Amino acid sequence: MTRQPAFHVRHAAGQYPVWIDAAWLDEIGERIASENSNCFVITDENVEALHGTALTRLWKTHADVLIHSLPPGEDSKCLDVAKQVYDELLNHRIDRQGTIVALGGGVVGDLAGFVAATWMRGIPLIQIPTTLVAQVDSSIGGKTGVNLTGGKNMVGSFWQPRSVYMDTALLKTLDDHEYTSGLAEVVKYGVVLDAELFGFLESHVAEINARDETILVDIVRRCGRLKAQVVEEDERETLGRRAVLNYGHTFGHAIETVFGYGTWRHGHAVAMGMMAAARLAESLGMVASGLAERQARLLAALRIPCDFPRERHDELLEVMKRDKKARNGRPVFVLPVGPGVARLSDPIETECIARAMREA
Amino acid sequence: MTRQPAFHVRHAAGQYPVWIDAAWLDEIGERIASENSNCFVITDENVEALHGTALTRLWKTHADVLIHSLPPGEDSKCLDVAKQVYDELLNHRIDRQGTIVALGGGVVGDLAGFVAATWMRGIPLIQIPTTLVAQVDSSIGGKTGVNLTGGKNMVGSFWQPRSVYMDTALLKTLDDHEYTSGLAEVVKYGVVLDAELFGFLESHVAEINARDETILVDIVRRCGRLKAQVVEEDERETLGRRAVLNYGHTFGHAIETVFGYGTWRHGHAVAMGMMAAARLAESLGMVASGLAERQARLLAALRIPCDFPRERHDELLEVMKRDKKARNGRPVFVLPVGPGVARLSDPIETECIARAMREA
Repeated sequence: MTRQPAFHVRHAAGQYPVWIDAAWLDEIGERIASENSNCFVITDENVEALHGTALTRLWKTHADVLIHSLPPGEDSKCLDVAKQVYDELLNHRIDRQGTIVALGGGVVGDLAGFVAATWMRGIPLIQIPTTLVAQVDSSIGGKTGVNLTGGKNMVGSFWQPRSVYMDTALLKTLDDHEYTSGLAEVVKYGVVLDAELFGFLESHVAEINARDETILVDIVRRCGRLKAQVVEEDERETLGRRAVLNYGHTFGHAIETVFGYGTWRHGHAVAMGMMAAARLAESLGMVASGLAERQARLLAALRIPCDFPRERHDELLEVMKRDKKARNGRPVFVLPVGPGVARLSDPIETECIARAMREA
Repeated sequence: MTRQPAFHVRHAAGQYPVWIDAAWLDEIGERIASENSNCFVITDENVEALHGTALTRLWKTHADVLIHSLPPGEDSKCLDVAKQVYDELLNHRIDRQGTIVALGGGVVGDLAGFVAATWMRGIPLIQIPTTLVAQVDSSIGGKTGVNLTGGKNMVGSFWQPRSVYMDTALLKTLDDHEYTSGLAEVVKYGVVLDAELFGFLESHVAEINARDETILVDIVRRCGRLKAQVVEEDERETLGRRAVLNYGHTFGHAIETVFGYGTWRHGHAVAMGMMAAARLAESLGMVASGLAERQARLLAALRIPCDFPRERHDELLEVMKRDKKARNGRPVFVLPVGPGVARLSDPIETECIARAMREA
């Protein structure tokens, strides 16, 4: 059987295939090793422990594949770690004929993508996302970046991968927190882009919670296509179209910054942010009331933590004023205006934001 | 009188004007401050001392302009300094509506360009190159980067400026070393792209050495147009066309890496590299003999140091094997094939390179 890409993502300089299937990680590894010279794989120790062992054993038989394992966790997504990787690339003489392979979740993908974007002013990148968040969101679209102490993703580039390989069988090995963190991004697509997906999720809660294989392949392909459509329309986030993907993220990033990146999973912080954003949209009259409740019910049914923090709201506000999308210090938000439709708000006054956080 | 841009540089995402004139720095400063909000000027202490005082005094009257001065010298072109600048940008809440302004030579331009390319995944950049090297070369074309301990410009991005402003009157304040360093790049254009320019330089040695104002505006405009043509044809250095601009640079970067960035000016290291490259081309039979001698005479007449180092050739070779253009560890070189014409060589054996260095 010849496999086919699930879809392609077009961008200014070309297009890349996204391959989505279940239980084919060894084949992915074989393909990458045989089709590319001088592969430099960036992964982390958790990924290796979870499901990378067979893969890295396979790769270690290829002279042309080097494996660099990062300490797991968001702390690795910083300039100091990027610098360590650069030094390794220099030591191993990886040049523009080489390829960076990102095997891991969002942290690995974002860091490896940033390194690929900036090593010798850009070398090819292959993404193998291993978490649900990375599969449905971060591995498609070319956003790369690292954090500063004072803000998430402050430093980065747009850099499109050469190809993306997903194995949905990996999702069964995720712990519940990691899995529901990814589900939050899936619900996000339903709220801001695809009312039908939202309904599908509502009517398949049991299968999703059981990680049914057929359902997972369907969901990952559907979300991947949604993501691809949006980024094709707005590759560099200059037109506002791509901004809809940031639903829940302005609040979510602030929560991660103020409470520390490890306190909640990214998707859970986003889910909290989605609740505050939905309340904000309702209080501004942008959407009929009821959406926040419906969203809350689905998040709860999928066991996604989404209770907005009750404290440190002043600090959250300060962080949001420094957000990348802020206009001269006033935050803007992606807000739902109806099922499956959202738009970027005008800059919003502090008091409205504070109220939404209290009511979320 | 309404000024006109000297020319525009087209690139994948648009085009930008390059303005070249003499003695109009104050006007440049006024324009930038009035046409852009949230300007973050990156400069260095030498530039401020040489000719930036009036300009920075003017800017300091604008609430919207912040000035960040770096320690002068190549040591500032590194990730640690970039990180300090990122922290300042975060503190001052410079977001995607802000603009980075690079006021200085190649170090300031490359660092500021890298910061602009990577801050919030890219914000607008304005270049005000103040040295001859920066005016005829580094400020046009979007190359940005920082050095690692083991290699120059190893980390960087392609990031096109929004506009470039040049004041050739600034060239009169450069010390002789800095000026002749820039002249080396001017001679480079003559060798690899423009035989007529090479002849023009040979017949105007006295005026060039006297820094005649009319000659300087002519030369900067001519070199700028040459650079623009090349980068328009090959924005990301993927087609080989842009590589011609690296004539002398593979040897030159190696010299800077092995002997330390401060030992010789960049252009002088390039001039040494041009001599080794010319000898290499002659020894490979790629160009009629005589070109190296003619090039040596012009470099000498313009008082450009170009004696190739007599020692540490083994270390130079090792560095060249790690060069960005190297293919699996074998260096390639831009070599002249006739007056005003050059091309990228195939990978070259170590012994040929070693002989060229001995004969340079």
